[in-house]
Amino acid sequence: MDFTVETATAAVMESFQGTKDPRLREVMEGLTRHLHAFVKDIEPTMEEWEAAIDFLTAVGHKCDDTRQEFVLLSDVLGVSMLVETMNGDEHGTESTVLGPFHMTESPRRELGDSIDLLGTGRLCVVSGRVLSPDGTPLLGAELDVWQCTEDGFYDVQQPDVQPPGNGRGLFRTDDEGRFWFRTVVPSHYPIPTDGPVGALLRATGRHPYRPAHVHFIAGAAGHRPVTTHAFVADSPYIHSDAVFAVKQGLITDFTESNDQQEADRYGVTAPFRHARFDIVLATAPEATA
Amino acid sequence: MDFTVETATAAVMESFQGTKDPRLREVMEGLTRHLHAFVKDIEPTMEEWEAAIDFLTAVGHKCDDTRQEFVLLSDVLGVSMLVETMNGDEHGTESTVLGPFHMTESPRRELGDSIDLLGTGRLCVVSGRVLSPDGTPLLGAELDVWQCTEDGFYDVQQPDVQPPGNGRGLFRTDDEGRFWFRTVVPSHYPIPTDGPVGALLRATGRHPYRPAHVHFIAGAAGHRPVTTHAFVADSPYIHSDAVFAVKQGLITDFTESNDQQEADRYGVTAPFRHARFDIVLATAPEATA
Repeated sequence: MDFTVETATAAVMESFQGTKDPRLREVMEGLTRHLHAFVKDIEPTMEEWEAAIDFLTAVGHKCDDTRQEFVLLSDVLGVSMLVETMNGDEHGTESTVLGPFHMTESPRRELGDSIDLLGTGRLCVVSGRVLSPDGTPLLGAELDVWQCTEDGFYDVQQPDVQPPGNGRGLFRTDDEGRFWFRTVVPSHYPIPTDGPVGALLRATGRHPYRPAHVHFIAGAAGHRPVTTHAFVADSPYIHSDAVFAVKQGLITDFTESNDQQEADRYGVTAPFRHARFDIVLATAPEATA
Repeated sequence: MDFTVETATAAVMESFQGTKDPRLREVMEGLTRHLHAFVKDIEPTMEEWEAAIDFLTAVGHKCDDTRQEFVLLSDVLGVSMLVETMNGDEHGTESTVLGPFHMTESPRRELGDSIDLLGTGRLCVVSGRVLSPDGTPLLGAELDVWQCTEDGFYDVQQPDVQPPGNGRGLFRTDDEGRFWFRTVVPSHYPIPTDGPVGALLRATGRHPYRPAHVHFIAGAAGHRPVTTHAFVADSPYIHSDAVFAVKQGLITDFTESNDQQEADRYGVTAPFRHARFDIVLATAPEATA
């Protein structure tokens, strides 16, 4: 049978019939079906096809040990969030993207410690509990926390300015499932724009900013871990995150507090900002607990 | 509005509303729609999403000045042929893929010259005419011809064995639109399999071979140029080209001839092989002639 626009998709799908792994076959057949539908839909010229090849090649060439431009592309096309959302658990706190800055190990810290090693910012307290879906506090739950500075940079982006581990901490909840630590209010910031994904954003009139947020990975025995953010409610771009990661349930008030008694409890001076963020972990299926 | 599996596609499509170039907006909206449909269809795990990111990154890293792994990926997914076919002209000879070996300039040769500079193979004659759709011979039409050896290698793949320009020639048709040259019958050959695309073919049980063929780009004033192949009819893999490039109308008999009179005319010795391949060029729209 001849290769025509009409027969093309069936011919390519048939070529994957001999795939031993049934899941790989399913993925390749699905890719063929949807990729061909896209191509037939937009009818690219040869020059446009070449431009697409050049773009993908440039994205690949931008990737190295500290930069993942394909993850960035997946992010700005909403694919990362789509996959993350489909893999989330409705019984727990909503998940959101891991992002590209979880590349070093966070230092172990005690409850109440400050993760702000620079000491130049206005202190803020983040506190909350890790809970089971039925409200049971999860004691000894592990929390990995990371965030950028008030200027919008992570420690790994400013090795000459920030000590390693600034803005990061590994915490364990207390006997009542509680956690609390001191930090600064993080800033909104742009995703890297010096590569082909940045050029794509400029060409499509999109801004590169993410609203301010604190990253969390929370886990506890017998529960499904969750990767999520606490978003700063009054941050710019809270309604137009360049990577589509904001969910209503994750938007958190970083409230201004003048209560010096409360400030004393956390080792800060009023007025200070206080964010309360509880994390619910869905129960893990027994087999994988 | 929250980012959910249901609202994701609309949210990302809306982000492209500010694109100034209407064609780019159309492409990005189409990409979003089809890419999200693919992701929702196969529901990748986080590990599968990471594997996809790693695969694309490896494809990008394999690309350099002499290797285009994304073109290869487009080829084995039938996308190159789909785009080529949609851009072909039904009034002329069917087009097929350019392939990755048209990277050097073919040397100018006279009609009747041999493009086989090694002289170790069994000679073959390729002859034909370049015609308008109404059958008018196109005199002075330009033909760029390239092919591999009897062993299945292009000159650029064997710089230590083959002189540059072996298997290549630029010809001009005579006053009756005819062309003829001497060569060897090319072999079938595998596409490069030492990269991630080769790994994909192995994982899906697909062979990497292309049936034997001679490449042509033909052009003439007032006509649309065509990029095509003459496929060797009795070649292995003629019904299972790894890049889906075979079209019935391009399959050409490389006939065994014992006619010494005809052999004398072409400067070869009987028995020899003779391929007749006429090329029809569609008329160009006046504005772009």
